[in-house]
Amino acid sequence: MEITILPNRLMVTQEKETLMEALVRHHLPVQTICNGKGTCGKCKVRMTGYVSPPSERDLAHLNELELQAGVRLACTVIPQAGMVIELDFVESQDRKESALLGMKASKLDPGVKKVFIQSSKPTLTDERGDWDRVADTLNTVTGKDYVNADLAILGKVPDVLRTDKFALTVTLSQDTILELEAGDTTKRLYGAAVDIGTTSVAVALVDLLQGTVLKVVSTENQQTAYGADVISRIAFANDGHESALTLQRAVRRTINHLLEELAVKTDVTGNEIFKMTIVGNTTMHHLLLGLDVSHLAVSPFVSVCNRPLEFSALEMGLEINPQARVSLLPNIGSFVGGDTVGAIVGAPEVLGPGNHLLIDLGTNCELFLKTETMMMACSTAAGPAFEGAGITHGMRAKQGAIEGVTLTENGIDCQVIGGQEPIGICGSGLIEGIDEMRKVGVINKQGKIADPEKTQELSPELLKRIRMGEKGREFVLTYGTAQGWNVTLSQKDIGEMQLAKGAVCAGIKTLVEMAGITVPELDSVTLSGTFATYLKAHNILNIGLVPDIAPEKIKTVGNAAHVGAIRTLLDQHELTMAGELYRKISHVELGGSATFSNYFMNSMYLERLS
Amino acid sequence: MEITILPNRLMVTQEKETLMEALVRHHLPVQTICNGKGTCGKCKVRMTGYVSPPSERDLAHLNELELQAGVRLACTVIPQAGMVIELDFVESQDRKESALLGMKASKLDPGVKKVFIQSSKPTLTDERGDWDRVADTLNTVTGKDYVNADLAILGKVPDVLRTDKFALTVTLSQDTILELEAGDTTKRLYGAAVDIGTTSVAVALVDLLQGTVLKVVSTENQQTAYGADVISRIAFANDGHESALTLQRAVRRTINHLLEELAVKTDVTGNEIFKMTIVGNTTMHHLLLGLDVSHLAVSPFVSVCNRPLEFSALEMGLEINPQARVSLLPNIGSFVGGDTVGAIVGAPEVLGPGNHLLIDLGTNCELFLKTETMMMACSTAAGPAFEGAGITHGMRAKQGAIEGVTLTENGIDCQVIGGQEPIGICGSGLIEGIDEMRKVGVINKQGKIADPEKTQELSPELLKRIRMGEKGREFVLTYGTAQGWNVTLSQKDIGEMQLAKGAVCAGIKTLVEMAGITVPELDSVTLSGTFATYLKAHNILNIGLVPDIAPEKIKTVGNAAHVGAIRTLLDQHELTMAGELYRKISHVELGGSATFSNYFMNSMYLERLS
Repeated sequence: MEITILPNRLMVTQEKETLMEALVRHHLPVQTICNGKGTCGKCKVRMTGYVSPPSERDLAHLNELELQAGVRLACTVIPQAGMVIELDFVESQDRKESALLGMKASKLDPGVKKVFIQSSKPTLTDERGDWDRVADTLNTVTGKDYVNADLAILGKVPDVLRTDKFALTVTLSQDTILELEAGDTTKRLYGAAVDIGTTSVAVALVDLLQGTVLKVVSTENQQTAYGADVISRIAFANDGHESALTLQRAVRRTINHLLEELAVKTDVTGNEIFKMTIVGNTTMHHLLLGLDVSHLAVSPFVSVCNRPLEFSALEMGLEINPQARVSLLPNIGSFVGGDTVGAIVGAPEVLGPGNHLLIDLGTNCELFLKTETMMMACSTAAGPAFEGAGITHGMRAKQGAIEGVTLTENGIDCQVIGGQEPIGICGSGLIEGIDEMRKVGVINKQGKIADPEKTQELSPELLKRIRMGEKGREFVLTYGTAQGWNVTLSQKDIGEMQLAKGAVCAGIKTLVEMAGITVPELDSVTLSGTFATYLKAHNILNIGLVPDIAPEKIKTVGNAAHVGAIRTLLDQHELTMAGELYRKISHVELGGSATFSNYFMNSMYLERLS
Repeated sequence: MEITILPNRLMVTQEKETLMEALVRHHLPVQTICNGKGTCGKCKVRMTGYVSPPSERDLAHLNELELQAGVRLACTVIPQAGMVIELDFVESQDRKESALLGMKASKLDPGVKKVFIQSSKPTLTDERGDWDRVADTLNTVTGKDYVNADLAILGKVPDVLRTDKFALTVTLSQDTILELEAGDTTKRLYGAAVDIGTTSVAVALVDLLQGTVLKVVSTENQQTAYGADVISRIAFANDGHESALTLQRAVRRTINHLLEELAVKTDVTGNEIFKMTIVGNTTMHHLLLGLDVSHLAVSPFVSVCNRPLEFSALEMGLEINPQARVSLLPNIGSFVGGDTVGAIVGAPEVLGPGNHLLIDLGTNCELFLKTETMMMACSTAAGPAFEGAGITHGMRAKQGAIEGVTLTENGIDCQVIGGQEPIGICGSGLIEGIDEMRKVGVINKQGKIADPEKTQELSPELLKRIRMGEKGREFVLTYGTAQGWNVTLSQKDIGEMQLAKGAVCAGIKTLVEMAGITVPELDSVTLSGTFATYLKAHNILNIGLVPDIAPEKIKTVGNAAHVGAIRTLLDQHELTMAGELYRKISHVELGGSATFSNYFMNSMYLERLS
């Protein structure tokens, strides 16, 4: 039986073998703590394609969400034709997300607060209404008259007052009462920062009193089922109102599932979350809000709304406190969204004195340039190669991914996440691998893999790794212990990366030229995005992802967009500042630019590009 | 066959007779334009108890709402056992409501407005978002940055912009965008003023640009099915959450039916109504909002909320524009509600220099006293006798009701609304009738009907009208042309009125005493309420409804509460002023007052009371 293991492998299983046994035999990453006895519940895999019905063990160890998502215990799965298995999706937090856990607010002013008040009780000589009594006491304590509250809040006053002897906690946001709770709950106040990517969605749970990130969870955007990139999502949504609703529900459900996961994994309930910030590209932003995306992708490209927005969680159907304030960072244009604004706020050095460039690499790539006189942003059609998509053995930066490559004439040394046998290659591995291959002459600056018949420069160790694959010449990075489990880079893979990096490089040159400066005048070049932390400056320059510049000017940061969401969650002044950026940043359209087209043609070479 | 005709009559019908024929035979008010051919559709009656299924004629002439409410054409109804027939409910607008039609705003500043804007179109060099474009233009036109809008509004921007070449009308309220409409709709802006009485609900449709009342409709409060007065409604609501919801839905449905009726009778749709003001007693206020009423009727008597409130129509489930602002006038205490505040605003002379007393007579009775130094309000347990309830042949001031009575020794002259044969007596008829009966000696100052055997003062014409009824002695006001159709006042009816007017008189004396003034120091006494316009000062004084005072100080106004609702609808400053009254007016509890009890004992006499 052949079953597919992501990314892009066929694994041959033997008769009467469980999935776990097959994975172990192939040295693939699966947890085997109880040795298949079914007691530990750790050997989780996720199935798509043919999904076997849950076994008793599955039902005992997995929750509803996991079962729905196709998660099963490998020790009970009997391989079946059509199965597609994803390994190591559990704890699939990007390493970047985990890095967020170390964040701590420098300034803490989330704009929501809790106030404990002890109200007086009604008497024959004091027959004020319950709500009037609370408002009066609140006025005495805060010096402010709070007049706005939802009808639902008003309705709960009598019960709340009488539950704990007229002692209660009021949650406030500006001039609005968000919640009333009996007794003193002032020690608990939480927020959530959401990063809606085209491919995956991450939610950080934040303690708004301590200014710390408590937990980060992430998962695949359920919209992925309706298209891999924003263009296909827009096309799907344009099919009609019901289709647009489907996408809205899909992303809302993704976020709500993550919120539920947070509630399970921490002691914080959704109802205790009173503020949320959201970053996402313009399409994600519009689909979440149920806004018309039909004008996003046709010229002139216009969004429904760029300016920052705030709604109640109730209005947005998000399962936190119904009155929680949900803020969406503004968009800059149709293809430069709140995620870019988030990245700017998350890497605030780019707003400092001097000329600074920010490159946000994800499924899409956006560029932001700040000079002494202006701020500009654009998107480039880089495609998702940096995230491993469209690459034969490409994968996201998870366990089993090659994240670094060193080539010498004696052979190859690959760094694999988790230190185990590699199953694919992620963006940083791809970039370093290509740079190393070029350095030793496996490929030339045009990206062409050497013809082993004709080259004389390569050592026999490297020469034997060049072979003809199904789709042309390819280079074997690692030989797997099982047959067929090699990780290779094909001529086509290299071409994909050249297109992607060429678009970025040409975009940078165009933007710099439009700003009236030169590349050497840039004081810093910051790369952000899920995998950017693991990039090395010399690889970036050597393959010409960024025009040639002093390596020390290159900085890599993690998922700056999500960091920006957290920063704006923790400090309302950052939120205000972020909200103003949409007016201050000029949106540049590269699509029709002849300058860009010219630069693009010359940016495909794998060399330092001036 | 005997069927019931409201109020409180049994009509004997003959075999094969239609309801219309029976009514005509009994000289009862029914329209017979087409003489029963079924072509005019005017002979409408309303049935409760046994309701016959709609006939083809009914289906042809009546709308869904009417059919549901039990309205039928009398010409097709075959009398059945258990039928209870209400006549003349059609156009049942109180005469007071019609009086509202003459109202015109002295000052017009409703706080909502429409602005027409012509937006620019997107180009390759102006790719602002649709919403940003609208907001920018709006900012240019109004000089103000509108940032608040519901997600539903945001969602409709693309369509609205492209329907009429980027020309649109924006409806604004303070800093909020309420609505977007394609093209220029600035000539249409409407509001609704709602008076929620315990017994009936009235809605006035108001042109907010002209400052005129376009139409007033009213109907029975559907809550009536669950109790006749506030105490029984509270008891019903306290049965549990579902019961409270039932009452909330009943009053909401009543209002929404009236709004639908307005839409049918005018060319104004609900969606064009952007502001609503609501007056009602505290119980009506709480039940509409779904607030807990369990603390209203137990000491200490506390409401959930007295302060003024504003919600969106959407939040309240009212079927006008979803974003319309709905303002509820504040309550003063558990039994002095927004209807009293409305009456004060509707009769603003009571706030002028001097000492002024306002008496709001309805199903409940509230008193408001303003002196040079203070404002006080209280409710008295007057009961609904003034509205005709609890009186044998009592009815509201509709067609067929005796509204005025003149007694001489030669007999009686009754003024009947509609000038037809009387079917009952309304509040003003009751008060004048009792005063006249006392004047000629039919009753004494204790309210006792003379014993015809013992009296020598009465003329034979009057003497013969005193007779023994089922429940004791009674006086025949009018002899009907059909057997049994006399209108009488019984000893018990007179007693009910004595209790009611005694409570009012004692309340006035108590309040005046608490304010440290005397009755002669009052500069005016204003009576408001559905029937108050038709009261005569000398009757009021003669029966001791109000302590003895110069008759020229007594003023009667119509439904001042509804007038107040309209005034606050037309002028936001009046709304603000009304909102502040809840803090300025002291609420006085007569329940436990010994002073009140003493005065009450001495206020039952039918004479001028000092």
